[in-house]
Amino acid sequence: MSSTTGKVIRCKAAVAWEAGKPLVIEEVEVAPPQASEVRLKILFTSLCHTDVYFWEAKGQHPLFPRIFGHEAGGIVESVGEGVTELKPGDHVLPVFTGECKECVHCKSEESNLCELLRINTDRGVMLSDGQSRFSINGKPIYHFVGTSTFSEYTVCHVGSVAKINPSAPLDKVCVLSCGIATGMGATLNVAKPKKGSTVAVFGLGAVGLAACEGARIAEASRIIGVDFNSNRFIAAKNFGVTEFVNPKDHDKPVQEVIAEMTNGGVDRSVECTGNVDAMISAFECVHDGWGVAVLVGVPHKDAVFKTHPMNFLNERTLKGTFYGNYKPRTDIPSVVEKYMNKELELDKFLTHEVSFAEINKAFEYMLKGEGIRCIIRMDQ
Amino acid sequence: MSSTTGKVIRCKAAVAWEAGKPLVIEEVEVAPPQASEVRLKILFTSLCHTDVYFWEAKGQHPLFPRIFGHEAGGIVESVGEGVTELKPGDHVLPVFTGECKECVHCKSEESNLCELLRINTDRGVMLSDGQSRFSINGKPIYHFVGTSTFSEYTVCHVGSVAKINPSAPLDKVCVLSCGIATGMGATLNVAKPKKGSTVAVFGLGAVGLAACEGARIAEASRIIGVDFNSNRFIAAKNFGVTEFVNPKDHDKPVQEVIAEMTNGGVDRSVECTGNVDAMISAFECVHDGWGVAVLVGVPHKDAVFKTHPMNFLNERTLKGTFYGNYKPRTDIPSVVEKYMNKELELDKFLTHEVSFAEINKAFEYMLKGEGIRCIIRMDQ
Repeated sequence: MSSTTGKVIRCKAAVAWEAGKPLVIEEVEVAPPQASEVRLKILFTSLCHTDVYFWEAKGQHPLFPRIFGHEAGGIVESVGEGVTELKPGDHVLPVFTGECKECVHCKSEESNLCELLRINTDRGVMLSDGQSRFSINGKPIYHFVGTSTFSEYTVCHVGSVAKINPSAPLDKVCVLSCGIATGMGATLNVAKPKKGSTVAVFGLGAVGLAACEGARIAEASRIIGVDFNSNRFIAAKNFGVTEFVNPKDHDKPVQEVIAEMTNGGVDRSVECTGNVDAMISAFECVHDGWGVAVLVGVPHKDAVFKTHPMNFLNERTLKGTFYGNYKPRTDIPSVVEKYMNKELELDKFLTHEVSFAEINKAFEYMLKGEGIRCIIRMDQ
Repeated sequence: MSSTTGKVIRCKAAVAWEAGKPLVIEEVEVAPPQASEVRLKILFTSLCHTDVYFWEAKGQHPLFPRIFGHEAGGIVESVGEGVTELKPGDHVLPVFTGECKECVHCKSEESNLCELLRINTDRGVMLSDGQSRFSINGKPIYHFVGTSTFSEYTVCHVGSVAKINPSAPLDKVCVLSCGIATGMGATLNVAKPKKGSTVAVFGLGAVGLAACEGARIAEASRIIGVDFNSNRFIAAKNFGVTEFVNPKDHDKPVQEVIAEMTNGGVDRSVECTGNVDAMISAFECVHDGWGVAVLVGVPHKDAVFKTHPMNFLNERTLKGTFYGNYKPRTDIPSVVEKYMNKELELDKFLTHEVSFAEINKAFEYMLKGEGIRCIIRMDQ
């Protein structure tokens, strides 16, 4: 048992006081974990678009002050009452969506949409008591998606924490907490391309590149990257992309361009932009008879997906996925093993690194569209 | 070799001279089969909605005079040059869509949309020479979907003819040529409900009831039939339907009604009406996390399927199917065996029977919505 067990920990956290304003490193108090909770020491965290989206708070309900962050690797510092699955010292990845192992979704082989711990971006407090575990001078600071990893210590529900191989380097595998697992799982678990098949990936950001990485692992023969930014093609080659299509370079819809390139359509497509027109293109560019399109990108709340139903009747399939259909606790440890046995390449996603004090730089890189993932080292 | 081999056969056929006018039993000449063709003696045929749709010729391009009919059982009379898969005396079911066994679709495990012999309702002639094999006094009579079974003899491409167990009663299994296989296959091959799951079927005509029969065979625990005609519920009970929903009885969308009945949605749904609103309901009534909806009914050419993309992202799947994803030659023989070993019940679909001379009565039954399938006996 560590000396801090059961006590409030004072540590540094990057607090977002207001929408869109630089985070401020503050000394916060982190209360001990309650029943079914664990307190983690975060060693590495990275920045994902979803953090930026809710930090900008354009449109959705703003909740401030708040501690963002949901891609991270850490070590269990202490556990709350009744927690038997984890113990101090375990190496873990906190995940923005949980797995209670009790609900109808957790009991289904197919779903990872846990009823209890499904992502909730509006909630800024712990489930058990509706309170925050973070405070500054007694004033609560809100949590974010049950993880709040932009803090040296954080408290999570045990169901949102995946225990992983302790020899895995946390500064690499931390990115499996969200984007990389999301894209790769969309391809490997949902689109399931066979060896030698053709795959189109819409959007070559981190998630899209991870979808390409999934297609590379599945030994697709052709991986067609689609993006409005042609500069992305160069980096995408490292992720197995063999051909590039910029819709702006063509007078006809991109689904027609792809159908012509592939003698009727690709075998699989994965949509990672969230733009509804890209979703329609991703669906309509798959081959009749067997094509499967998978939606990953989160759409605008007023978006409407439209297509002629004959596109379905000609034996095309459209599916959506969330977090690559991985169940966080059950499946993520094996994804870490994929990295450990060199099947999955993660290093190429890690283009930037900053100290915790420089966390706002990570936001700048992302807003400029620079690089793929920026690792934030908590110990610096 | 039969005495008719290589010769023109004169026989009776029910000719549609004009759109919507009663068929006329005429003496027609049926030319011998050419290369890759077979001539069949039809013993039993049945009437399907698609015959009526193209006979009414409302909207689509009319092609008359024509011999309709595409659900049938018969015996091979003679075969054309190069045909080795079939021989005179074989018991067969002609099918409106074929299987060449050579194209990319036939070689795919997943598709049955044969490139060469895919259904073509506009073509009224044979593929090889663009000629009809039917004539009256030298004037050609058009074929229909490569089968034209409303004739004592017909000529088909060998790829559109499934050889079946000769002990199977052709007056029963003839209905597997189209509607019954379509509905049953949609459930068993595409929706694939697990034992104990919940299934909703939209439209309780022949195809919908066959979809229910598929769910019964799969041992679904609840089969919810949806139809605007409440009278159909009584017959539907014989096909395993356990509950009935008439959308007219409810103020809210039927997908909400079904979600409330099933604690969030059914595991699988099958849409057999072709109405685009029913398609949307069928998709939106499946459970998030694992629900699969399958479209079977053919939509209007201007129909648009619309839904919020979050319905996909919450891990729902939408697929379409054609002829229940059965490959006619490869798979239909085993469907006949399902009937032979009493797994599949066909007799309950056969509500009416008429002689060939009374074929217009079969049209009347269907136009009145009376019964499910009417068998037409060619020998009477």
